[in-house]
Amino acid sequence: MTINELTRKMKLISSPQLSASSSDARNKALLAIAEALKENSEKIFEANAKDLANADASGVPTPVKKRLKFDEAKLSGCLSGIADLVNLEDPLRKVTLDRELDEGLVLTRLTCPIGVIGVIFEARPDALVQISTLCLKSGNCAVLKGGSETRTTNRVLFDIIYEAALSAGLPENCLALCEERSEISELLKCEGNVDLIIPRGSNAFVRYIMDNTHIPVMGHADGICHTYIDAAADAEKAVKIVTDAKTQYVSVCNATETLLVNRNVVNTILPKVRDALLAKNVKIRSTAELAPVLNGEIIADDDFANEYLDYIIAVKAVDSVDEAIAHINRFGSHHTDAIITEDRAAADRFCALVDSADVFVNCSTRFADGYRFGFGAEVGISTGKLHARGPVGLEGLVTYKYRLEGNGHIVADYAEGRRSFNFKDL
Amino acid sequence: MTINELTRKMKLISSPQLSASSSDARNKALLAIAEALKENSEKIFEANAKDLANADASGVPTPVKKRLKFDEAKLSGCLSGIADLVNLEDPLRKVTLDRELDEGLVLTRLTCPIGVIGVIFEARPDALVQISTLCLKSGNCAVLKGGSETRTTNRVLFDIIYEAALSAGLPENCLALCEERSEISELLKCEGNVDLIIPRGSNAFVRYIMDNTHIPVMGHADGICHTYIDAAADAEKAVKIVTDAKTQYVSVCNATETLLVNRNVVNTILPKVRDALLAKNVKIRSTAELAPVLNGEIIADDDFANEYLDYIIAVKAVDSVDEAIAHINRFGSHHTDAIITEDRAAADRFCALVDSADVFVNCSTRFADGYRFGFGAEVGISTGKLHARGPVGLEGLVTYKYRLEGNGHIVADYAEGRRSFNFKDL
Repeated sequence: MTINELTRKMKLISSPQLSASSSDARNKALLAIAEALKENSEKIFEANAKDLANADASGVPTPVKKRLKFDEAKLSGCLSGIADLVNLEDPLRKVTLDRELDEGLVLTRLTCPIGVIGVIFEARPDALVQISTLCLKSGNCAVLKGGSETRTTNRVLFDIIYEAALSAGLPENCLALCEERSEISELLKCEGNVDLIIPRGSNAFVRYIMDNTHIPVMGHADGICHTYIDAAADAEKAVKIVTDAKTQYVSVCNATETLLVNRNVVNTILPKVRDALLAKNVKIRSTAELAPVLNGEIIADDDFANEYLDYIIAVKAVDSVDEAIAHINRFGSHHTDAIITEDRAAADRFCALVDSADVFVNCSTRFADGYRFGFGAEVGISTGKLHARGPVGLEGLVTYKYRLEGNGHIVADYAEGRRSFNFKDL
Repeated sequence: MTINELTRKMKLISSPQLSASSSDARNKALLAIAEALKENSEKIFEANAKDLANADASGVPTPVKKRLKFDEAKLSGCLSGIADLVNLEDPLRKVTLDRELDEGLVLTRLTCPIGVIGVIFEARPDALVQISTLCLKSGNCAVLKGGSETRTTNRVLFDIIYEAALSAGLPENCLALCEERSEISELLKCEGNVDLIIPRGSNAFVRYIMDNTHIPVMGHADGICHTYIDAAADAEKAVKIVTDAKTQYVSVCNATETLLVNRNVVNTILPKVRDALLAKNVKIRSTAELAPVLNGEIIADDDFANEYLDYIIAVKAVDSVDEAIAHINRFGSHHTDAIITEDRAAADRFCALVDSADVFVNCSTRFADGYRFGFGAEVGISTGKLHARGPVGLEGLVTYKYRLEGNGHIVADYAEGRRSFNFKDL
């Protein structure tokens, strides 16, 4: 079966069935999946050992190997994630509008699954468990393609999950696994069958996906986040927040890449921030103007469009909150940007005018995350403006439909003045 | 200024300013626009007379000329539309989530404009007024391109609207008008500046737009709507509804193109429906099976993917509600589909499994419309599943951002166990 044939079947047969399934049926399947993962843990760890041996043989660096590893601790994290998911309210069939248009003619807007979702994710076996269970909870069929470094583990995990879902009564082809890289380009051509693509991974990879499909894509490529130290900033907070935002975890999309500093505090707060960053071995790059304070590599304006994902920070001085906003809207990636200030008006102006999914005041950009926002599971972070924006939880995997119920109502009666609408929210 | 330069300015300068503007400032601009249109009505009618003379000279058919015409009645419709819009609640800065993550760390989700929107619409001067005022009400900058047959009227209307908006204090370049067809392809390349394209017009045109841009597109190409007469249908309602759905206005996207009939009622209800349709001069096409009842042109399965927009209907018999659902999901355009039945279970199954924006029970597909749904103004109808679906009102022109406000909060404190989240919805 080609990917096109598979997704056509999902769209026409599995997806309507899954979207009509009860909350109870989907939760039972999640519990069956958790049970099956627990029972088959040895088989999973054996498969993972093979992937790890291959990784060793091909010289995969240690931080990457940490992500490939699937052990007791990772399994237990997955199981508690599934238990949390079962306890979350059903995201489907929520009534978001209930209106009588006229006597006996009632309009209801109800949430429903998006349909068929393609998720392409990094080499992390726990991501496969998390994504497949999130999709099932929200009534979506999913085509999964994980990183090839965990191919063996993915296959074993997928088979366990899919069989448990079927045995619990979910429809055939509710989930599918792709294993070949070539299947990604096949998947991108399945417009009409696949309703949404969620790519996770490197900047270049996500951009490639966005540029090579007519299917809607939800995700983010760059994460060029800024922290702006305002004239009215508190020095202690500035030092603490900038250090955290840059160094708490450098290789993630919500780490700060650029520090903007109001010229009024270049000789007061900036030196303290500099010392804290140097103490964490951060390389500081700046415009020529700030070289006397920072002593780092000099960079030009265009360099502020770089995402470092490393112990490097770019620094620039600005005259005002408005100049900071203009810089962020020009060079940022509309992900997460923060202001440090004790001035309420400056904070409000920054939050209103910065065109990003997350606008933060006096806290670290690293808080931009579905778990930290209290969403439970996270599908990813979106820098697009349509549908879901910022950290995306279960809510981002549903859409809605309008149900209108009448009793022989026709438009001609209204067009020709025999009846008129009498809108009344119920 | 090229379209790229113009939209860049909109994105970086006008859009942040407009998104921070007060509800009061935007409503004042709308009132100023209404006033200016009233004051300049003669100038508008003169311009329209030129467009109509050109249309006459080039032999434009009468129904099209009706849409080109902008007279007292159309102006008065536009003015009352603006008055309604002023009275609608501000769609911006609505708080849709308010949550304390931990002591002193508060997350708020607020609605905000999408940003810069490109709208390409049919030759109807009233559409220019409606779209530009909807965009301003929702804080969006807009690039407008109307049909060339109303070029003179569009220019005059646009100048009046734009000048009134500026004089009321809205930012420069909050609106722009394109006049050349070549500017559409320039607009489609302005990814990064333009956040959304809304195309209105013919099926082929909308599909061209969707296939030729990486900017998100909201709209619909085909409108292949179905009405299904179930085994448990009431004959009288079936006759009334099918006649209305097919003939009340044939050239629109929510008119029914295909009639599905349960085999149990082919010899009872279908002949009555046939007689009503023939009385309205509808040409009936059907599968060979139904020829003895319908006597019309015989068509094959593939013909059910046609959108007629005319006094033509395609008819097919099915065995069950499930077969009707399967046909609709395969051949439909996910716009609007109706079931006629007195059987609650059949209605529920139809609404749950049909994968369309609008699923109707015992009423005409022609009700699928923002005005009839009580949304006030309508931007268009979307058959996509992301963001807005079905008839799109003001709500479809906004997105949201997350504002997180702390007091020096850093992620390291949570990652290293010194603090923990304590989610509390406020």
